[in-house]
Amino acid sequence: MGWEKTYRRLRDYLVENALLGSAEALLGWDELTYMPPKGADGRARQMALLARTMHDRFVAPEVGAQLDELAQEKLDDDAAVNVREWRRLYQREVKVPSALVAEITQTAVHSRQAWAEARKTNQFQTFRPWLDKTIDLRRKYAACICGKNPSSSEELYDALLDDYEPYETTRRLRTMFAQLRPRLVQLMEKVRTSGRRAPVEILHRTYAVDKQKAFAEMAAKAIGFDFSAGRLDTTVHPFCTTIAPGDVRITTRYDERDFGNCFFSVIHETGHALYEQGLKAEHFGTPLGNSVSLGIHESQSRLWENLVARSEPFWRWAYPRAQEMFPDALRDVPLEQFLFAVNSIQPSLIRTEADEATYNLHIILRFELELLLLWGDLPTSELPATWNLRMREYIGIEVPDDTQGCLQDVHWSQGGFGYFPTYTLGNVNAAALFQAARKQISDLDEAIAQGEFAPLLSWLRSNVHEHGQRYCARDLMMKATGEEPSIEPLMEHLSSKLNRFYA
Amino acid sequence: MGWEKTYRRLRDYLVENALLGSAEALLGWDELTYMPPKGADGRARQMALLARTMHDRFVAPEVGAQLDELAQEKLDDDAAVNVREWRRLYQREVKVPSALVAEITQTAVHSRQAWAEARKTNQFQTFRPWLDKTIDLRRKYAACICGKNPSSSEELYDALLDDYEPYETTRRLRTMFAQLRPRLVQLMEKVRTSGRRAPVEILHRTYAVDKQKAFAEMAAKAIGFDFSAGRLDTTVHPFCTTIAPGDVRITTRYDERDFGNCFFSVIHETGHALYEQGLKAEHFGTPLGNSVSLGIHESQSRLWENLVARSEPFWRWAYPRAQEMFPDALRDVPLEQFLFAVNSIQPSLIRTEADEATYNLHIILRFELELLLLWGDLPTSELPATWNLRMREYIGIEVPDDTQGCLQDVHWSQGGFGYFPTYTLGNVNAAALFQAARKQISDLDEAIAQGEFAPLLSWLRSNVHEHGQRYCARDLMMKATGEEPSIEPLMEHLSSKLNRFYA
Repeated sequence: MGWEKTYRRLRDYLVENALLGSAEALLGWDELTYMPPKGADGRARQMALLARTMHDRFVAPEVGAQLDELAQEKLDDDAAVNVREWRRLYQREVKVPSALVAEITQTAVHSRQAWAEARKTNQFQTFRPWLDKTIDLRRKYAACICGKNPSSSEELYDALLDDYEPYETTRRLRTMFAQLRPRLVQLMEKVRTSGRRAPVEILHRTYAVDKQKAFAEMAAKAIGFDFSAGRLDTTVHPFCTTIAPGDVRITTRYDERDFGNCFFSVIHETGHALYEQGLKAEHFGTPLGNSVSLGIHESQSRLWENLVARSEPFWRWAYPRAQEMFPDALRDVPLEQFLFAVNSIQPSLIRTEADEATYNLHIILRFELELLLLWGDLPTSELPATWNLRMREYIGIEVPDDTQGCLQDVHWSQGGFGYFPTYTLGNVNAAALFQAARKQISDLDEAIAQGEFAPLLSWLRSNVHEHGQRYCARDLMMKATGEEPSIEPLMEHLSSKLNRFYA
Repeated sequence: MGWEKTYRRLRDYLVENALLGSAEALLGWDELTYMPPKGADGRARQMALLARTMHDRFVAPEVGAQLDELAQEKLDDDAAVNVREWRRLYQREVKVPSALVAEITQTAVHSRQAWAEARKTNQFQTFRPWLDKTIDLRRKYAACICGKNPSSSEELYDALLDDYEPYETTRRLRTMFAQLRPRLVQLMEKVRTSGRRAPVEILHRTYAVDKQKAFAEMAAKAIGFDFSAGRLDTTVHPFCTTIAPGDVRITTRYDERDFGNCFFSVIHETGHALYEQGLKAEHFGTPLGNSVSLGIHESQSRLWENLVARSEPFWRWAYPRAQEMFPDALRDVPLEQFLFAVNSIQPSLIRTEADEATYNLHIILRFELELLLLWGDLPTSELPATWNLRMREYIGIEVPDDTQGCLQDVHWSQGGFGYFPTYTLGNVNAAALFQAARKQISDLDEAIAQGEFAPLLSWLRSNVHEHGQRYCARDLMMKATGEEPSIEPLMEHLSSKLNRFYA
């Protein structure tokens, strides 16, 4: 076992990188929660230094040499996984010249500022040159990774996708989204023609902020969030971040006139947090202690948010508690009406506010357009018009301005091409996992209706969380569900919702 | 000017170390404010890694070689100060092996937790092994700096003192404290025999926590704290920490039945923060952008807390505001009575709650005991009993339990030997600086009574804050006051208080 000494030394060295990363995570969390305004300059310098230090430490030639050496050895299972994943990352990072990394980072800052300005003033033209530059840099970045002669234009996008969804391919995504789109469009059509409308105004009565916080915390705790190993704070955009194995933090925002916004975002972020809290602490800082991919991460948040926390069993448990906490708002509302309100399906302009059916159409539209942008098949000058056309075609809604259209999301401004599809992958995975869990756990619905979430969490722990990156996303899904990945569980879930509320 | 290039490169490199240090400062702040309990292990590892990284970067042989090279050059004034101080630190740090630094940092985290537990349960035995280990590590650390044959046992303590009060000596401190102790004991005796007692129960009426916070923030802002470049949070033990030039944070604690505890701790920490906010941002990360010593730092907190915020002029301005904020508690209390209450001199158990006269006796006791502990002349098993004996002798009070005795302070648990005497140095310096300011600023008392604190702050900015480490503490004091350091201004201040309230 001559490899063990090399492996352990390298592992310790790379775990230190993860510790630097977790210090950076705290700096990032603090920036968005408690940092005073004049701390911004210092914060940018601190974070840039840590990022550079981690990069320099990782791409050191000795690291590459040791990884190559270890790849020749007969490693044990755990070491094999870590070496496989470290090599994959190393071979990517080492191909991108630091000058390009620096240009990308610098451009992202200015581009995001231009985007924010364009969005505020509804002036796509202000942002367009930066979008062009960002696309160009992404193309160069992808080309570094693919080499000079990519075998297909899809390979270029594969290279970007790999940052968010390792081992996934553009080809498979295109196939999946091509199946999904017409069926979702058809579903929306049925909703439209049903003539039914969810009583969403119930959710816009007055819900005191401190009680929303208490109710959301109660629910987060009930489904398994360990508050002695985490926190809930307030920010503009909800997120989940891991500072250390025993320190996973989530955030939300509060609006007295919007029950759903806070509640479902807390459950969503709690889903992410449960995954992080379920990773094995002894593997911290190695691939075995990391989440698999964004599509798997998002499956955990969506499963709890949509499959659990919008379900009838869940509210059979939670609704009496909600009525007790918010008597003025909910005393006169029967469970069935409340359920319909939180399961509303309705065309909408803004992705982050979309219901779980429409949501995927927002994603498919972005995925299609970012492929075209990257390939040069859609000039940025035509982006707003094309966006608006497809919104009409897929979701049946007119886009009144670019702020509510192609300028609504931050992702492209900071170069996040390849990120969007992982949201829908998350929804597809969530439905498949929940379907499998219901088959494998007896009386799961009844347990949930009793407020017993431990059986489901424990199933997710042993089928998803504990494995870290042992399996790639696809293999993990197949092991957990016993089936080939498919959109059917998601479509079944959405159809049953349709039949229940819009029949 | 051939030295400039070397100097600039070295400065940039060492400023990066300061940035790592400021990331560590945030980790430390978060640990004491918001970190969930299970985050402790990860936090210890993060902080140990950053400490080690900074140490390793700093003691790199190239740094020493460049500092030696620069020390031969005819540098400009600023560079000369920075090189002088970096060399002093370098010559210290290079003597301490990184393994020992890491062990000290790691031990401090666990030891502090054991102390917190021991204090909560009043079980000195829980903490004792950690105290033994901490003392042992401190001795090893000091021995690294002194070399194998220290010329005296005082040299061992000098080595520790130098971390907090550079250029100060154990010898001078022992001389000063030997003068101070009998005069303070005598003063306490006069208070006792006066038969007068301050109406402190006024301060223990009901003061709503949110109003205490608002009132303390109002006062902190009035004396000059910039809340857009800082924060006030809640902790068990109040402190001030700098995260970046535009990010200086203070903390306090609240007790509805204790007005003074929160208010004076906020003013105290604001005094520290004003010093930090008054350092020149362009010198960030270099000695010219750092505070001189703890004794100077503490002079700033004590000056605002005791010389300003317990004075009659201050309360002529603040008292009507306090009465308006707390009508039920203060409506029937005349200013003179309130003033007596906040200037009470009375034997007490807890250092942080002690009045400004007794306070120094608490310090002298700690200073004497930590010398004995370090020299091995007092086994930790005898610490509680010896502590209690001296409390009776110096302060005339019986210690009922260790939580209110030798377990009350965090310092020793984290290895802070050599730290305590700087508190009394701070009191001595504060009185000397305030005496000088009153001589040099016309009508200072009247300005304070009008709520105009800018003249005093501006005097402190130009006489203390802006210089960073240009002068050592002793030289800075002599430049600012025009006199040799002496305990007389402090004794005059305390005597005039005695005459005013206890005649």
